Amino acid sequence: MPLDTSLVRKQFKVIGTRVRRPDGIDKVTGRAKYGADAFAPGQLIGLVLRSPHAHARIKKIDISKAEKLQGVKAVITAADLPDLTGGDRGMRDILENCMARSKALYDGHAVAAVAAVDAHTAKQALKLIKIDYEVLPHVTDVDEALKPGAPLIHDDIFTDGIEPKPTKPSNFCKLAEYGHGDVEAGFKEADFVIEKSYKTEQTHQGYIEPHACLANVSPDGVAELWVTTQGPFVYRNHCAALLGLDANKLRVTASEIGGGFGGKTHVWAEPLALALSRKANRPVKLTMTRDEVFRATGPTSSASIDVKVGVKKDGTVTAAFAELRYQNGAFPFTWAEFGAMTAFACYDFKNVKTVSRDAVVNRPKCAAYRAPSAPIAAFAVESTMDMAAKAIGMDPIDFRIKNAAREGTKSSYGPVFGPIGIGPTLEAAKKHAHWNAPLGENQGRGMACGFWFNFGGQTCVDLNVTPDGSVTVALGTIDVGGSRASMALAVAEELGVAYEQVRCVVADTSSLGHNDMTDGSRGTFSSSMAAVDAARKAIHTMRERAAKIWEIPLDEVEWIDGQAKAVGEKHGNKAPLSIKEIAAQAANTGGPIAGHSEIVADGAGVSFATHICDAEVDPETGRTSIKRYTVIQDAGKAMHPSYVEGQYQGGAAQGIGWALNEEYIYGKDGRLQNAGFLDYRIPVCSDLPFIDTQILEIPNPNHPYGVRGVGETSIVPPLGAIGNAISNAAGVRLNHVPMSPPRVLKAIKDAR
Amino acid sequence: MPLDTSLVRKQFKVIGTRVRRPDGIDKVTGRAKYGADAFAPGQLIGLVLRSPHAHARIKKIDISKAEKLQGVKAVITAADLPDLTGGDRGMRDILENCMARSKALYDGHAVAAVAAVDAHTAKQALKLIKIDYEVLPHVTDVDEALKPGAPLIHDDIFTDGIEPKPTKPSNFCKLAEYGHGDVEAGFKEADFVIEKSYKTEQTHQGYIEPHACLANVSPDGVAELWVTTQGPFVYRNHCAALLGLDANKLRVTASEIGGGFGGKTHVWAEPLALALSRKANRPVKLTMTRDEVFRATGPTSSASIDVKVGVKKDGTVTAAFAELRYQNGAFPFTWAEFGAMTAFACYDFKNVKTVSRDAVVNRPKCAAYRAPSAPIAAFAVESTMDMAAKAIGMDPIDFRIKNAAREGTKSSYGPVFGPIGIGPTLEAAKKHAHWNAPLGENQGRGMACGFWFNFGGQTCVDLNVTPDGSVTVALGTIDVGGSRASMALAVAEELGVAYEQVRCVVADTSSLGHNDMTDGSRGTFSSSMAAVDAARKAIHTMRERAAKIWEIPLDEVEWIDGQAKAVGEKHGNKAPLSIKEIAAQAANTGGPIAGHSEIVADGAGVSFATHICDAEVDPETGRTSIKRYTVIQDAGKAMHPSYVEGQYQGGAAQGIGWALNEEYIYGKDGRLQNAGFLDYRIPVCSDLPFIDTQILEIPNPNHPYGVRGVGETSIVPPLGAIGNAISNAAGVRLNHVPMSPPRVLKAIKDAR
Repeated sequence: MPLDTSLVRKQFKVIGTRVRRPDGIDKVTGRAKYGADAFAPGQLIGLVLRSPHAHARIKKIDISKAEKLQGVKAVITAADLPDLTGGDRGMRDILENCMARSKALYDGHAVAAVAAVDAHTAKQALKLIKIDYEVLPHVTDVDEALKPGAPLIHDDIFTDGIEPKPTKPSNFCKLAEYGHGDVEAGFKEADFVIEKSYKTEQTHQGYIEPHACLANVSPDGVAELWVTTQGPFVYRNHCAALLGLDANKLRVTASEIGGGFGGKTHVWAEPLALALSRKANRPVKLTMTRDEVFRATGPTSSASIDVKVGVKKDGTVTAAFAELRYQNGAFPFTWAEFGAMTAFACYDFKNVKTVSRDAVVNRPKCAAYRAPSAPIAAFAVESTMDMAAKAIGMDPIDFRIKNAAREGTKSSYGPVFGPIGIGPTLEAAKKHAHWNAPLGENQGRGMACGFWFNFGGQTCVDLNVTPDGSVTVALGTIDVGGSRASMALAVAEELGVAYEQVRCVVADTSSLGHNDMTDGSRGTFSSSMAAVDAARKAIHTMRERAAKIWEIPLDEVEWIDGQAKAVGEKHGNKAPLSIKEIAAQAANTGGPIAGHSEIVADGAGVSFATHICDAEVDPETGRTSIKRYTVIQDAGKAMHPSYVEGQYQGGAAQGIGWALNEEYIYGKDGRLQNAGFLDYRIPVCSDLPFIDTQILEIPNPNHPYGVRGVGETSIVPPLGAIGNAISNAAGVRLNHVPMSPPRVLKAIKDAR
Repeated sequence: MPLDTSLVRKQFKVIGTRVRRPDGIDKVTGRAKYGADAFAPGQLIGLVLRSPHAHARIKKIDISKAEKLQGVKAVITAADLPDLTGGDRGMRDILENCMARSKALYDGHAVAAVAAVDAHTAKQALKLIKIDYEVLPHVTDVDEALKPGAPLIHDDIFTDGIEPKPTKPSNFCKLAEYGHGDVEAGFKEADFVIEKSYKTEQTHQGYIEPHACLANVSPDGVAELWVTTQGPFVYRNHCAALLGLDANKLRVTASEIGGGFGGKTHVWAEPLALALSRKANRPVKLTMTRDEVFRATGPTSSASIDVKVGVKKDGTVTAAFAELRYQNGAFPFTWAEFGAMTAFACYDFKNVKTVSRDAVVNRPKCAAYRAPSAPIAAFAVESTMDMAAKAIGMDPIDFRIKNAAREGTKSSYGPVFGPIGIGPTLEAAKKHAHWNAPLGENQGRGMACGFWFNFGGQTCVDLNVTPDGSVTVALGTIDVGGSRASMALAVAEELGVAYEQVRCVVADTSSLGHNDMTDGSRGTFSSSMAAVDAARKAIHTMRERAAKIWEIPLDEVEWIDGQAKAVGEKHGNKAPLSIKEIAAQAANTGGPIAGHSEIVADGAGVSFATHICDAEVDPETGRTSIKRYTVIQDAGKAMHPSYVEGQYQGGAAQGIGWALNEEYIYGKDGRLQNAGFLDYRIPVCSDLPFIDTQILEIPNPNHPYGVRGVGETSIVPPLGAIGNAISNAAGVRLNHVPMSPPRVLKAIKDAR
């Protein structure tokens, strides 16, 4: 990982300006087309029948009556999606999650689907499907699931990282450890050792747009999918694999997306829509209800975490340890491991260790949610850090500054950090007016830090210069947070033209090379690297064309301020050639002008944030209201500051909801009791203060402009910051998220 | 033009096979989406008000009542399409043709348009628009239009090629001359001089799908257009220019196309749909009726031609001359010039001269129709050639063989020919069973030759290898005659994989670089050059990746039969790497694998055909029926023979219709009297015999596989071949196309 920041551009013309959003007008006027807004002649409506049981063996499915209903064109079960995954466990889990095979593994698990001429007929058909279930014991809590004798979700003997190798099936699916030094020795050096256990409940990303798609499979196996997704290429690859198609046979077009936050990184009902279309030989539109989104798409893990921090009176942390147990829903993954990697990443501890235990339970397959797993771990760690600071009587920011990671720190999860922003965000927080403002009655102030890795990965950009010299850019990273604006800025910056001269679109999967999922805060980082690369290639071609027009050597043509200029004494008086002029001659100088980039974007710079929060706790009701909130985060370089601020604010807003109210509530029967926005309470406008933001820019040396992803880290600190603020406001330490009024009130009463 | 054919590939694995059409199933099952099949939420219906007068000054347009009608969202006139063409005469003509400005220039000329919530409301609104016309004298015949004192279509003083330079306005808009030698001297050497004048009527391409589009202009000037077109990029450029947008602001997506044949090379109502959408701030769907297609899109020219051929008794043509007068519709172009260039191109004449006179008249702006202008000229020339052969008692094929152009011939329009197919098609015709078969009563056999230049031009192809090793290819030349199949064949041939492993799509204009119009028989020639180029680049990248995987030098990796192979004694035992295996490692070896090509395809090989036709003429009714028909044409290399044969048959079928029945009939009032398929009689199945085909392959040395365009030439000989067959069947020489029953009957009666 080269740390030579001398190659990172520091002076910009358009990067960093707040240009108009290209999608703004379409979105506010209702013109933008989302997942449910596509139409194909002859389209059917697809609906899914879902298990009402948390855990049940499917003994028999009788679809004969449904198939006979007038207007029903296809009924499918798992039999219509034969297992073609050839031993790929990950793909098999995706398949089984999309449609239950021998067992329904959670309330809401798909068991059959129908396509009919209208929604009314499709609903009737669902009722005519008869399923003979054998209800099985279930488990939804991670700690219960890990106990010997717990109901088994799968018959697998999971062995991933687990020592000694298990010989019997269990729900414990992954063990991981991170850290360095000797934590036992470290705790012995401590003046104080703080230990605490925490619990967080399952939350949903709460994106406003439900999953929706329009699938169209031709009898020759060529297929089209219009879909709301964070990754059309990954959807293409997965759906094609599940349906037994070559990837090139399925063309996926991403709609505008009404939020994803990690929840639209997996295929859910899309393979069902395709299988219905294949069977019905008609296009099928499938739109989830909100109930289905809650019950059968991918929420976060719920988790239990034990943290132990040893500290000296001077503020030195001598050792830190955490054990993290996360449920993954019904299919194994590594969510606890992500928690273990991120838990202590903000700090430079001599002795640090994390252990993660992932478990499967009878809940929907978990998915990413903005810095997945990290907010949960940070809640536990940042709460404990505040307790440690209190124990030694040190200001919580000063305490964190003393222990903050810095360039050269060997991180708690392994790599050595390059230039990073945790120290600067803490220093900025200390100096911030918010940190030093007076507080009112029943109010408390808290702060916390957060970290996210940021991803890179495979990325393609095609840039084309039109005959009038305006520029089109085809992207594969869909626009969840401004990719069209940011890439237009990058291309305009490189070419030396106005932002308006560049238009970015998200291309379909048959018109561009593979792009990894837009997740992990990789979109802007990766696509801007590819966009810069493509633009520089186009500039090279335009210099060649100018050299040809002028009949001079290429090295006597420079690209300055959006124009080819002939340099050297011989050519000094040649009028420069603009892109428009060069493009107008393209047909005579070699053809259309383009720049293409296919890269693996390496070196996504890690991201850190510090948040400050003022909370007011009503001692009578336990209700917490957030009075003031400030996000300070390192963006590396903010290509479009308004979008960056929007990401900061959005992450904080979602974190506030998670901290205070959002949770999946399962009944004893294992059924979700609050699968709707009336009962699953995401914050509304009146629940939130204006969220102030401060962008720091510590350049990522691996990106030509120093860019770091910014989308995820902002959701990491809020849970801890709010917990700390409540502690300071009400004198009680909450260890269970959400810190909803009943829990806060109980803590206050218990303390009295 | 390099003539080294040694670089042209001769041995093929998949090129030349009759693989399954990728669009076949979608088209026969009704799944394919044409121009009228798109849908946008909130879309309006657009309708156009058209002039009922052939020529009229527009004194006043009152749209106030229409605008007030409930459900009407926009009414536009020329005022809503201000002239932004900045002195570009061609663009100004396009603008004025789309919407009349001060004058309506032909029956059907658009004068206003409305967008309303449904078609009924839009129709009512059209009726509420009040226009105060001053009807002007009109002229629709080319010879009448060229006369002094003819009604003037424009006030322009046209000077293009005209000597002496005119000083007064007229309808004569272009003069051109081609040829070489001394025709006057040539005619003096002749034993016989044949002179004859001909007339052909205006025809329409008769595509089954009317023009249709869905336009969507956002308030910020970003626009989308779904449209049936032969050239989405040209439509993009023209519509953007007319609306005052940068080209990149308008994303055009081409639908499947239900025929174009040149008629979908111009924008017609699309700028109106966009202007309506801009004004209404809603998506607008605009679909032409058949009446509108006839009255207000681009048919061929009608023409008058005088031909003179001097011939010696031994069959040597000593001189040939033609004057061609074509009407261009209401806007100036060079259709007669195309006739002048193609007229004698089949032959190697020592003395040859053509003069073309283009004129404007009160008819719709002419457009290309498959080898535009050439069938008209060939009718006159091939009829006269037959008369010359008869005059000296020589077999018409032998006569043509004696005078045929060959490699090295300086063509009648200038360039020196490379290897060409006119001689071989004539020799093949002579040997063909058809030429030597017996004839029945009232039957006659005719033959004729035809020529088309073929075009090349700007072309882009993006090839991407998916992670599973299947391949997507994005094309910009829309699929009028098999471009998706042919390009998949080209890519499969280069990569060494099965045809099914490659899928081609037609990309939208924001996802690919500029492609010229799919016309002039350029699609297969140009795009296959770009596809081969792109595939070879991808192969280079895959060799690099294999070298990286094996850690050996690039030059020790060869690409053989779809696999990377390590060559040299050291590496002989390495298992080869397939595309699938290389693609699977792409993320670890540098990223997605692609090949891109942006070219100007130079060197489209000229195309020649010889047709044989048996006609039976009913002496009682004058009705001609075609009993047998054979097309012999040089394809250079037939990439997909079934498509090539389809092109041969389609051109012949359209030529038969043109020859026998199709014509625009204008009344004395200048109004079109037969604007519908009931009265404008295109051939139906029962009018046609099975059309036999013979593909010759004289490689085009400028194409890697030797490909020549094949789409156009097949419509050039039928008019002449049928005229010659009628002459031999009925003993009368028809000089007026269509040779409809009344005209044939009159000729028979006149001859008696």
